[in-house]
Amino acid sequence: MIRTHDAGSLRATDAGTTVTLAGWVARRRDHGGVIFVDLRDGSGVVQVVFREEDAHALRNEFCVRVTGEVTHRPEGNENPELPTGEVEVTAAELEVLSEAAPLPLPVDDQVEAGDDIRLRYRYLDLRRSGPATAMRLRSRANQIARSVLHERDFLEIETPTLTRSTPEGARDFLVPVRLQPGSWYALPQSPQLFKQLLMVGGMERYYQIARCYRDEDFRADRQPEFTQLDIEMSFVAEDDVIDLGEAIVTALWKDLAGHEISRPIPRITWHDAMARYGSDKPDLRYGVELTELTDYLRGTEFRVFAGAIDAGGYVGAVVMPGGASQSRKELDGWQDWAKARGARGLAYVVLDAETGEARGPVAKNLSAEHLGGLADAVGAKPGDAIFFAASANTREAQELLGAARIEIAKRAGLVDESAWAFCWVVDAPMFERTDEEGWTAVHHPFTSPNAEWVDRFEEAPDRALAYAYDIVCNGNEIGGGSIRIHRGDVQRRVFDLLGITPEEAQDKFGFLLEAFKYGPPPHGGIAFGWDRVCMLLAGADSIREVIAFPKTRGGFDPLTGAPTPITAQQRAEAGIDAKPKPQAVAHTGTAGPVAPVADPT
Amino acid sequence: MIRTHDAGSLRATDAGTTVTLAGWVARRRDHGGVIFVDLRDGSGVVQVVFREEDAHALRNEFCVRVTGEVTHRPEGNENPELPTGEVEVTAAELEVLSEAAPLPLPVDDQVEAGDDIRLRYRYLDLRRSGPATAMRLRSRANQIARSVLHERDFLEIETPTLTRSTPEGARDFLVPVRLQPGSWYALPQSPQLFKQLLMVGGMERYYQIARCYRDEDFRADRQPEFTQLDIEMSFVAEDDVIDLGEAIVTALWKDLAGHEISRPIPRITWHDAMARYGSDKPDLRYGVELTELTDYLRGTEFRVFAGAIDAGGYVGAVVMPGGASQSRKELDGWQDWAKARGARGLAYVVLDAETGEARGPVAKNLSAEHLGGLADAVGAKPGDAIFFAASANTREAQELLGAARIEIAKRAGLVDESAWAFCWVVDAPMFERTDEEGWTAVHHPFTSPNAEWVDRFEEAPDRALAYAYDIVCNGNEIGGGSIRIHRGDVQRRVFDLLGITPEEAQDKFGFLLEAFKYGPPPHGGIAFGWDRVCMLLAGADSIREVIAFPKTRGGFDPLTGAPTPITAQQRAEAGIDAKPKPQAVAHTGTAGPVAPVADPT
Repeated sequence: MIRTHDAGSLRATDAGTTVTLAGWVARRRDHGGVIFVDLRDGSGVVQVVFREEDAHALRNEFCVRVTGEVTHRPEGNENPELPTGEVEVTAAELEVLSEAAPLPLPVDDQVEAGDDIRLRYRYLDLRRSGPATAMRLRSRANQIARSVLHERDFLEIETPTLTRSTPEGARDFLVPVRLQPGSWYALPQSPQLFKQLLMVGGMERYYQIARCYRDEDFRADRQPEFTQLDIEMSFVAEDDVIDLGEAIVTALWKDLAGHEISRPIPRITWHDAMARYGSDKPDLRYGVELTELTDYLRGTEFRVFAGAIDAGGYVGAVVMPGGASQSRKELDGWQDWAKARGARGLAYVVLDAETGEARGPVAKNLSAEHLGGLADAVGAKPGDAIFFAASANTREAQELLGAARIEIAKRAGLVDESAWAFCWVVDAPMFERTDEEGWTAVHHPFTSPNAEWVDRFEEAPDRALAYAYDIVCNGNEIGGGSIRIHRGDVQRRVFDLLGITPEEAQDKFGFLLEAFKYGPPPHGGIAFGWDRVCMLLAGADSIREVIAFPKTRGGFDPLTGAPTPITAQQRAEAGIDAKPKPQAVAHTGTAGPVAPVADPT
Repeated sequence: MIRTHDAGSLRATDAGTTVTLAGWVARRRDHGGVIFVDLRDGSGVVQVVFREEDAHALRNEFCVRVTGEVTHRPEGNENPELPTGEVEVTAAELEVLSEAAPLPLPVDDQVEAGDDIRLRYRYLDLRRSGPATAMRLRSRANQIARSVLHERDFLEIETPTLTRSTPEGARDFLVPVRLQPGSWYALPQSPQLFKQLLMVGGMERYYQIARCYRDEDFRADRQPEFTQLDIEMSFVAEDDVIDLGEAIVTALWKDLAGHEISRPIPRITWHDAMARYGSDKPDLRYGVELTELTDYLRGTEFRVFAGAIDAGGYVGAVVMPGGASQSRKELDGWQDWAKARGARGLAYVVLDAETGEARGPVAKNLSAEHLGGLADAVGAKPGDAIFFAASANTREAQELLGAARIEIAKRAGLVDESAWAFCWVVDAPMFERTDEEGWTAVHHPFTSPNAEWVDRFEEAPDRALAYAYDIVCNGNEIGGGSIRIHRGDVQRRVFDLLGITPEEAQDKFGFLLEAFKYGPPPHGGIAFGWDRVCMLLAGADSIREVIAFPKTRGGFDPLTGAPTPITAQQRAEAGIDAKPKPQAVAHTGTAGPVAPVADPT
């Protein structure tokens, strides 16, 4: 090392020692004949004192090496806010290791900079303490999770990222294969299929911090490549996977957020979560629960509600405490908010703060009887507002109320930003109706029905439940998984229900089904959305903050300028325009897997 | 867990305990009314005893769950070779968890199976103890390396794999970008550029077990995707990186190979390695060093040697102990061997075992004087054979002798297969001549000249040395790296020598050079070829043995059938045939990096 000490490690006990430091000029102050420089390295900052003639050329972010003696700062000049604040280094020698041009992005936590400039000059951004701390936290998170897993005899196994494209997988990223012109690899959406194959292979306990790829339309805070902590176990039941998941998050939050998660983490069924919170990832930092009013309002003449009820749907409400004091404009704002979500609007009544009298557009349409009992029915008090949703599609109405609930908590200041609220959402439905009156798998077609439904899910596919579970933190789904089907007869019945013929199954899921002929063990797993976990632990509001070199919307990298056009020569060499030859080596009957639907993170 | 105990963990002290096990039927033996089954799980094997009527349906590799009592085996029936050999489990209950079809690949270490069938049914192959052990070893190797690095405050940081393609990077794997039709990402050949950017960003100590991609013509034992343990450090000199590298290999070999590497690992200069072993990755498990004869043979009339000497080239020899006893056919075989390597042949003389007289095709062409001193000059004894190489190109001749050296050691049985011989090859040359009489960088253009040459490499580019180092184990290069240039003036001079104009540099290396304007620290690093490291530790002869799902030649995956043709819809959606639009967001002047030449592993 070209230095003897870390700048941030110096203390009063080092006084008298001659040290060599190396780092960056973080700040410079000139004081008649003497220049004070804050020298920063990975460990922190220390003040270095130069004679003016030695250091006049130094500018911010020059990289320097300094030799000098550690001395106590003069009485009264100590800086108690700095770990090194009792000392300074009196420079005897200075070597400029490299100079810095004028900075496009000040290396200063106080300065707010736009994302574009930050990512374009990410290497300067990373010198700021916030981003640097996020990188350190993420490294530590990996270490903590691995230690929990290794204690439990998990094997870290790498799975391929140049894999097989899938017939319906329009959203795989594709890679042309020069050596087999006309053929393409796909980048995996997750290691799902390979981790199940590892279980068939008797590996029993697998994990990987795995890079995954999804070619999605860019929504806010999505990256084309992302990372998941991917786990699979054999000979387990749901409780075993949940127990492991809790051990991991408990260790992470304790070490990195100073928060002791109390175990067991509460479990809520998927149906309860929808009914009470209008979400399959409820934020439990606050109450504001939904109330179903379908029965209460049965017989109403208000067309919007009656229509939903007659169609076998749902009417419900959520209460905004103190919401009656909102201005007309604020209440209109809720209509815009609902429309932005694709709803027709958000019906409401407000309860007069003095009299409790119900007013507002909906009030006129309800009978005196329905109005009279309404406050009790939904648990509202004078001064509150009550928002309604009604739809023939229960889930649609619940989700609107769930979104309103989040918005209410935000506007009414009900969110304790320092709180951590975890829950498991369990007993997810197996199937949902497709538009064509068939059924589709909510999770993926290898997800196991639970014990109650395994022998009779055909009787009521809409009510059949799966061994599928998600873990939710403050309204963010941070992980999810399932127990998989390992019995051939169950798998066949699931395919039957989904309308997948044996031929189609073979074509779509070929090699996994082939593997499952040879004594597959019962198994299940979970995957954590690692970027999101680290984001929450870092207290950041975007996963970009915990990714060293993230991309912006559309998958653009402001630093490297990727993606770019390619040359004609690259195009020709890569075989992009070649017609595929029929492959002698391809096997019949194992044409390939379904789009590898991951544990949903 | 659906079991209470691991099969392989049962011991005599468990006798009397009722246990539930789950695993696979590894072997079944019928003994009139009783069936013995070896039940295998991840922990090992135990013998289970069934009544015939309970277990008659069991076949190999059925996955089962068994409950029964642990009992001592009857006197005389113990199996001392099995950790569980003192006990057996008397089955009271049996549940077949899943059945197995007749096996295409016996799960048996004794059976030799071809690679194609093994990889096609990799999930059965992994149930065999050899492959399973290799997976366990690799997981443990990751853990050991990480622990060495974390002790030294390294941060694990993930770098992007959807990156920028490079103008001359015909061998990047490419990925079309649907959201920016006509634009492509490239998969990285290594994290080289990003790790250097992290150093500019002040991260100081980075590592990553990184997936890398090279679209190479398939040579034996190459994979299109491979893994390297990638490391970069700031404020270091060569010795610091070497010291860290030694700490890692020492920890790995101690734990996984039971071998104590004695440190410091010997260092040999690149030129010495070529002169003595004819290789930049010498196998030091045996001697058989090369001898240069250029001066000794100066003045010879033998045209082949004289031509090389007159051209300023090289003549040298390597001795095969006992090689005089080879048959004519064996000696002719060496000619075929040399031709297969692209040489014209391999000149030799043999020394009569009795008289020491030199015979063979070359002997006739040498003067009595040259012949007379030859044995002494090359250190040969009566009964040895002496092989020669001569070329105007010194390196070419040395490499031929180096290859002959390896072949000699093999044929003469000089390789101690149980030995481990490590060395560092240091002081690699900076430059080599191109065909056009210009210069090209041996490593990459960011590799730093060493202190002796940094101010004057222009004086003798062919002799200038770099701070570049490789670590070699038993003739395998397992890692390599360099100290990078961090001074702008040195970088400009290197570009000048390489004939790269400032405009070209900007075009090729844009964003890295831009970053280097802002106070880059001195830095350097190393990358280990992780597949190869694990292969050596596992005692395997192919990296495929330490990869969970490897590909065969041509990048084909026998298990999934990847790569495959894609559908017209996929092609259209991915924007493969779109013309790129001029990008408003692209910045001028940072058009992109060179092909990211990695630390060479």
